[in-house]
Amino acid sequence: MTEALAIEEFSKIIAKLVKTRPLVHCLTNEVVQEITADVLLAAGASPAMCVAEEEAGYFAGISSAVLVNIGTPYEQRVRSMKLAVQAARAKSIPWVLDPVAAGVIPWRDSLISQFVDMNPTVVRGNASEILALAGMGSGGRGVDSLDSSSSAVSAASKLAEKTGGVVVVTGETDYITDSRRIIEVPGGNILATLVVGTGCSLSALTAAFCAVEEDRLKAAAAACMLAKRAQERAARAAKGPGSFRLEYLDALYGLAFGR
Amino acid sequence: MTEALAIEEFSKIIAKLVKTRPLVHCLTNEVVQEITADVLLAAGASPAMCVAEEEAGYFAGISSAVLVNIGTPYEQRVRSMKLAVQAARAKSIPWVLDPVAAGVIPWRDSLISQFVDMNPTVVRGNASEILALAGMGSGGRGVDSLDSSSSAVSAASKLAEKTGGVVVVTGETDYITDSRRIIEVPGGNILATLVVGTGCSLSALTAAFCAVEEDRLKAAAAACMLAKRAQERAARAAKGPGSFRLEYLDALYGLAFGR
Amino acid sequence: MTEALAIEEFSKIIAKLVKTRPLVHCLTNEVVQEITADVLLAAGASPAMCVAEEEAGYFAGISSAVLVNIGTPYEQRVRSMKLAVQAARAKSIPWVLDPVAAGVIPWRDSLISQFVDMNPTVVRGNASEILALAGMGSGGRGVDSLDSSSSAVSAASKLAEKTGGVVVVTGETDYITDSRRIIEVPGGNILATLVVGTGCSLSALTAAFCAVEEDRLKAAAAACMLAKRAQERAARAAKGPGSFRLEYLDALYGLAFGR
Repeated sequence: MTEALAIEEFSKIIAKLVKTRPLVHCLTNEVVQEITADVLLAAGASPAMCVAEEEAGYFAGISSAVLVNIGTPYEQRVRSMKLAVQAARAKSIPWVLDPVAAGVIPWRDSLISQFVDMNPTVVRGNASEILALAGMGSGGRGVDSLDSSSSAVSAASKLAEKTGGVVVVTGETDYITDSRRIIEVPGGNILATLVVGTGCSLSALTAAFCAVEEDRLKAAAAACMLAKRAQERAARAAKGPGSFRLEYLDALYGLAFGR
Repeated sequence: MTEALAIEEFSKIIAKLVKTRPLVHCLTNEVVQEITADVLLAAGASPAMCVAEEEAGYFAGISSAVLVNIGTPYEQRVRSMKLAVQAARAKSIPWVLDPVAAGVIPWRDSLISQFVDMNPTVVRGNASEILALAGMGSGGRGVDSLDSSSSAVSAASKLAEKTGGVVVVTGETDYITDSRRIIEVPGGNILATLVVGTGCSLSALTAAFCAVEEDRLKAAAAACMLAKRAQERAARAAKGPGSFRLEYLDALYGLAFGR
Repeated sequence: MTEALAIEEFSKIIAKLVKTRPLVHCLTNEVVQEITADVLLAAGASPAMCVAEEEAGYFAGISSAVLVNIGTPYEQRVRSMKLAVQAARAKSIPWVLDPVAAGVIPWRDSLISQFVDMNPTVVRGNASEILALAGMGSGGRGVDSLDSSSSAVSAASKLAEKTGGVVVVTGETDYITDSRRIIEVPGGNILATLVVGTGCSLSALTAAFCAVEEDRLKAAAAACMLAKRAQERAARAAKGPGSFRLEYLDALYGLAFGR
């Protein structure tokens, strides 16, 4: 029994985002830092990356939301991530976990489970990742999901029960659940899978929306809906992944600022 | 009593840049490395990033200019930055300091002040950052300036007196001062604020221009003017931040190479 | 006595790539990670970057090919690179070495020679880099080649004899040799030199092709040919380096997927 996010609610949440311009502290992977910042800016949020242990926690404490993306983790960066999460939790600042490639590498899995135990406001992953986190996975392959998003809905629900937060499975249809409710967001475009960082930056957008909407199920759904609508708009103008990336940023901007 | 950079001087400095193709050693933040390299290449300069302590100083010594950007500092990278600056100073190679988010985090501020004490050839920042460095700030918020550039002109002048170099405050109008003279460069386009790295890469351009123009006030003003003119050209063709980024690079190229 | 890669073979190798979607583990430099991932995705391969010492070797062992790019090396990252190469060699997984800026900095040269001694399946560099590795260089300047690719053909051959693998010199014409055979791939477009990462991402493409074609001379030549053809297609639509970058990605996609 899934529901949809009403278009009026979506519009209201976006308007709040653009008005508030939440500061999103991103501790993300090396590959997608630029597109993550550009996606946040295009959608009306304000990105920041403070990576040193000396400032990651301090800065998280003065941010509106925090993103932790486990794409290219290493010891020192993980320490900064933990300090940021601790600071966020201490001040009830929402934080989003993106468990990149969960289920593939034992070392990484044990790392990710430490963050899952810190009760992320939202976990956002593809089907293979969410299945792995719920202990129901068959192992992914790198960053690609080998499972369809619908196959991970019960895993998402189980994981949401464990974390006490929201879990998002993205794919052909996105599913957003807090274990009691499920919102589904269909649509988007396949070209998004040929541009690095579309998923990672969606996690950043999710953090931004959590900063402006108390109901985090709706916040996460609004982020997914914005991304899906922007992908569709981008696909109409794109002739490949290069132009899709550009059009996606322009579409986010157009949807957020009403252009 | 501000002056303007004459268009003839601007053209002459750009011609020198394209002819000389100065090698700019960039120790910059993790988020903007690609756009920084692409901006330098589009404008006719040659970027390089050698980040290890073992080579940062050596490479600075054979470069035409050095950029130090404090966007995502951490202990090891800061050591490389200091070695690069020391090498640059020893050989009178110009170096530019970009004090990202000065005035926000105490740890970062003490770091930035160490670099200010090393007498950068040019400091390039937004109003909040320059006000903070001059001890006149009210605190920024992440990388966004909360102050207008004109409000930081006397702070810039005071800071230039301290460093003995040039200070650039960028914003709606850019102000470039060596404490005795002030050049102002109006124009540009607001879409530049929605693309990460436009400010950071302007600092890199400033370093490139310092490599070819002995009067660093004019060198920095030429960099600002190139960026402003390219932003204006880009805005005419852009429909959002995605297309603006592309058009900005094409415009830099067009202005530099006369296309 | 050089030969050409027949267009039928080129098409066959690309079809295999798109069908197999090889997973390419990239340990590359900080500046070009995003474009490297985007180039691999556009051409039908699957990129991954696992940089920690704890997982770089493990992940290399489950990848289809490995890329090591010495653009921004530092101690810890080099340890991860070595673990990845050791794992690749233990499982006969092809790996490509991109010796960025060889011949410029003594510390870096000694590092690169350690990787050359590990017998890379392919070494891909510009003329200055390959000349330096063969002990025949006059020293480059940063990442720019000061020599024409044709001047490095005998150096490439000598180096290939030493590594027992394939060596690629890219430039106006690309030369690919295993010391017995030489394939040449002319064409491309000069705008590619004004976009950071076109060379680095070609090394990643080369790794991808090595994963699907046993004859690594042909694999590397196919990668060069794909890049050259995509550059030519991109140049017809581009008006500067910004649009060239986008068109290059779209052209790779068009050539790989027959769009």
